[in-house]
Amino acid sequence: MERLKVIFHVSDRSRWNYALTSVTNFLLDAGAENVEAEVLANGPAVTAYTGEKTELVARMEDLNRSGVKFLACRNALRAHGIAEEAVPHFVTVVPAGITVLATRQRDGYAYIKP
Amino acid sequence: MERLKVIFHVSDRSRWNYALTSVTNFLLDAGAENVEAEVLANGPAVTAYTGEKTELVARMEDLNRSGVKFLACRNALRAHGIAEEAVPHFVTVVPAGITVLATRQRDGYAYIKP
Amino acid sequence: MERLKVIFHVSDRSRWNYALTSVTNFLLDAGAENVEAEVLANGPAVTAYTGEKTELVARMEDLNRSGVKFLACRNALRAHGIAEEAVPHFVTVVPAGITVLATRQRDGYAYIKP
Repeated sequence: MERLKVIFHVSDRSRWNYALTSVTNFLLDAGAENVEAEVLANGPAVTAYTGEKTELVARMEDLNRSGVKFLACRNALRAHGIAEEAVPHFVTVVPAGITVLATRQRDGYAYIKP
Repeated sequence: MERLKVIFHVSDRSRWNYALTSVTNFLLDAGAENVEAEVLANGPAVTAYTGEKTELVARMEDLNRSGVKFLACRNALRAHGIAEEAVPHFVTVVPAGITVLATRQRDGYAYIKP
Repeated sequence: MERLKVIFHVSDRSRWNYALTSVTNFLLDAGAENVEAEVLANGPAVTAYTGEKTELVARMEDLNRSGVKFLACRNALRAHGIAEEAVPHFVTVVPAGITVLATRQRDGYAYIKP
């Protein structure tokens, strides 16, 4: 069966904890091998992508090891004065977050705003 | 014509009032007989599913009589210390809310976050 | 190639600034000629649709000139005591915002909640 595809959209910094819990529960329930999960951060949420290994970054890294992709909007990084080199190695920087949210949905991904 | 299918995602307790008003207006506009509407609660929003017949629960029950399905995420119930037996009789408990949001969208439901 | 279709859902008044920035960045990235973008406001967000030419309304008008459609939910206008004649000329009033969000998604639009 085709994998269940989901893109999570995180724009508020305060939603990260709930968002990562949502992703974790999803992998546990559906099985990491049965899903394609991506997390796109834009707006102030990108400020969690710091070089420091915070608890949030550690949880993201764990999820990334289970196959979850993490994306950052370049416009948002610039707006918050974050250098692209400062984001964790497992995060992919994209030119514009909204375009990714739109194309993923066109390609059959479900959209979830935690 | 095929029914218009929508799943509403409620995660904040404070959004219930607005969410139920959205569902009500949708039924009035499109016609209850023309829609498939479901409301999935996870996160702190599940705390509204108490045994007490609050005004919110009374409104949900009214909508349920018009065909609206109400779902609760089991992970969220556990995280908030709510026994499954305590949720109103018209609420269906699902193993993981995110999986339901993903599969419904795969099956052609629109996603709306009130 | 088919245009990339997106409907943005704004319900909180405080999200307008971020929402309009999201739409602007989307047009810049994907190209205004390659997208169909609509912004549906319901809930308290409709209070930004005033006759006054606020900075927000000026930004909306600029986006509208680039092809972005702005919609207002009639139920929300009534709930907030706003006359339909008071909304800016470039805003289309629809009977029920949720029905538009549902039908657009059925018609292949991506849904984004800024």
